[in-house]
Amino acid sequence: MNENPIGIFDSGIGGLTVLKEIIERLPSEDTVYLGDSARVPYGTKSSDTVVRYSLEIADYLIREHNVKLIVIACNTASAYALEALSKHLTIPVIGVIEPGSRMALRETRGYNIGVIGTEGTIKSGAYARAIEALDKDAKITSTACPLLVPIAEEGLEDTDIARLAIKGYLGEMLAANPVDTLLLGCTHYPILKDTIAEVIGKDIVLVDSAKATSIGVYDILLEMGLMNTSEETGEHRYLVTDSPDRFHSIGRRFMDNADISAELVEIER
Amino acid sequence: MNENPIGIFDSGIGGLTVLKEIIERLPSEDTVYLGDSARVPYGTKSSDTVVRYSLEIADYLIREHNVKLIVIACNTASAYALEALSKHLTIPVIGVIEPGSRMALRETRGYNIGVIGTEGTIKSGAYARAIEALDKDAKITSTACPLLVPIAEEGLEDTDIARLAIKGYLGEMLAANPVDTLLLGCTHYPILKDTIAEVIGKDIVLVDSAKATSIGVYDILLEMGLMNTSEETGEHRYLVTDSPDRFHSIGRRFMDNADISAELVEIER
Repeated sequence: MNENPIGIFDSGIGGLTVLKEIIERLPSEDTVYLGDSARVPYGTKSSDTVVRYSLEIADYLIREHNVKLIVIACNTASAYALEALSKHLTIPVIGVIEPGSRMALRETRGYNIGVIGTEGTIKSGAYARAIEALDKDAKITSTACPLLVPIAEEGLEDTDIARLAIKGYLGEMLAANPVDTLLLGCTHYPILKDTIAEVIGKDIVLVDSAKATSIGVYDILLEMGLMNTSEETGEHRYLVTDSPDRFHSIGRRFMDNADISAELVEIER
Repeated sequence: MNENPIGIFDSGIGGLTVLKEIIERLPSEDTVYLGDSARVPYGTKSSDTVVRYSLEIADYLIREHNVKLIVIACNTASAYALEALSKHLTIPVIGVIEPGSRMALRETRGYNIGVIGTEGTIKSGAYARAIEALDKDAKITSTACPLLVPIAEEGLEDTDIARLAIKGYLGEMLAANPVDTLLLGCTHYPILKDTIAEVIGKDIVLVDSAKATSIGVYDILLEMGLMNTSEETGEHRYLVTDSPDRFHSIGRRFMDNADISAELVEIER
C-alpha cells in the first residue's frame, strides 16, 4: 500500500488519453499529470533534447510531488528516454510503446500487425523494434498519419475530413497488406478510434496503447505492492509549463469534459 | 549601399515563404534565415516567452552575422515582439502583419476584408488591430484555420482534404459575410494559395502577407540607403536550432526545391 500519486507526463495534451484510462482502471489512485506545453512538440526534437526534458520532468515530479511511479504518456519520450529514466530513477517507470506492442501481439490472430503513429514515432521504428523483441514471427507494416493529431485536437474526429485522411493514410497500406490488427501508436488516436473503425471495418482489431499502458501500470503497482487500496476516489492534479488555455480548451474534450484546471509550473532549475 | 545580409527568422519553416519572396524581389541581397526549430511552435506560447525568444534571436543574428535589417517572418512573433525589437535594436525591424494589412487595404474595393490565420494569430486580433489602425472604415471578418498548417507541411495542398478543410473553414464565413479581399495571415498559406483561390472563386482578391512583407523590406532598404546594389546574386544561409531533418524535407518544397542545407546553431548564451 502506497498512497503517493502516480506521475504522468507528455509533451502536451495527447497523454490525457493515457491518464483517462489509468483513472478508469485505478480509481483510488491520486495522479499528477504534467503537460510540457512550453516545449511541445517533442516529435520534431532531437533524442538528446527529449532525454534532457524527460529527466527534468521526472526529477521535478519526484521532488515536488513525491510520485511513486512515472508514466511516460508520450511516444517520442517513450522511444528516446525510457532507458535513461529507468537507469536514473529509483522508482519504476513505464512508457507507452512496450505495453501497446505486447497487447497487439496478444490480440493478433495472423501475426500481421499494422502500426500507425506520428512521423517521428514511425520513423524511429520504436514499435516495430518493440514488437520484434517480444516475438520475431510478427510481420509489421507501419505508416505515419501526421494529420490525425491536428484533426483530433481540432475536434474534427467525426467529420469527412477525418474519414478522408484515414482512408488516404490506411487505404494503400491495407490494400498492399491486409493486417489483422492495427496498433494506435499515438496518444491522440484513441479520440479517432470510432472513425478509424468505421473506415477500416470490423475485421481488423484496433489496439489502443493508452488502454494497454493503463494495464501495465496496474500490473506494476500490484507486483511492487504500490497500489493505493483506500476506498476513496483519487485526486487528480494537472500541471503545465506554459499558458494553460489550450490545455483547458482541447484537453477537456479528451477527458470527457472533466475539470482539468491546470497550474502553471516552472520545472527547469 | 550596404552589403551586410538581411536577417529573417521564424519559429520554424513557414517563414521560408517570406524569404522566397524577398529573394525574388531583391536577388542581390545576402540573407540569413534562422528557424527556431528547437522551440517551435510559438503560437501556443505566452507573449513573454515569445518576446524573450525573439530578442535572443535578433541579438544572435546581429552579433554573429552582422545583419542590417531583421524580418520577423512569423505572425506570432510579429504580433508579440515587433515593438520590443524595435525599441531594443538600432537596426530596422519589420514584421509580417503591418505589410499584409496595408496591402489588403490597397486591394480592397468594398472595404470588406477577411483574415485567415492560425488560432493564435486570429485570437490575438493582431491583423484586425493593424488594419483598423490604418483605416477605421474597413470591415474585418476573421476565422482561424488550424488544419491548414499541417496540410501545407505534409504536402497535401492539392488534395480533397485541403479543399474540404478550406471549404469547411471559409464556407460559413463567406456565406455570412461576402468579403471582397482575403488576407492570408499565416506564412504557411502561400503554399495553399491556388487551392484557396479554386475553392473561393475569382471574385475575391487574395492578399499574401509574405509578398507584402517583401515589398516592405524593399521600401525600407531603399529609404534607408541599405540596398545591396552589387550585380552579384546574393548568398543564402540557413540556420536551425534543432535537428535540420524536418527543415530540409519540408522546407525544400516551400522553396521550390532550392538547396536549403541548414547549420545547427546554439543561440542561447
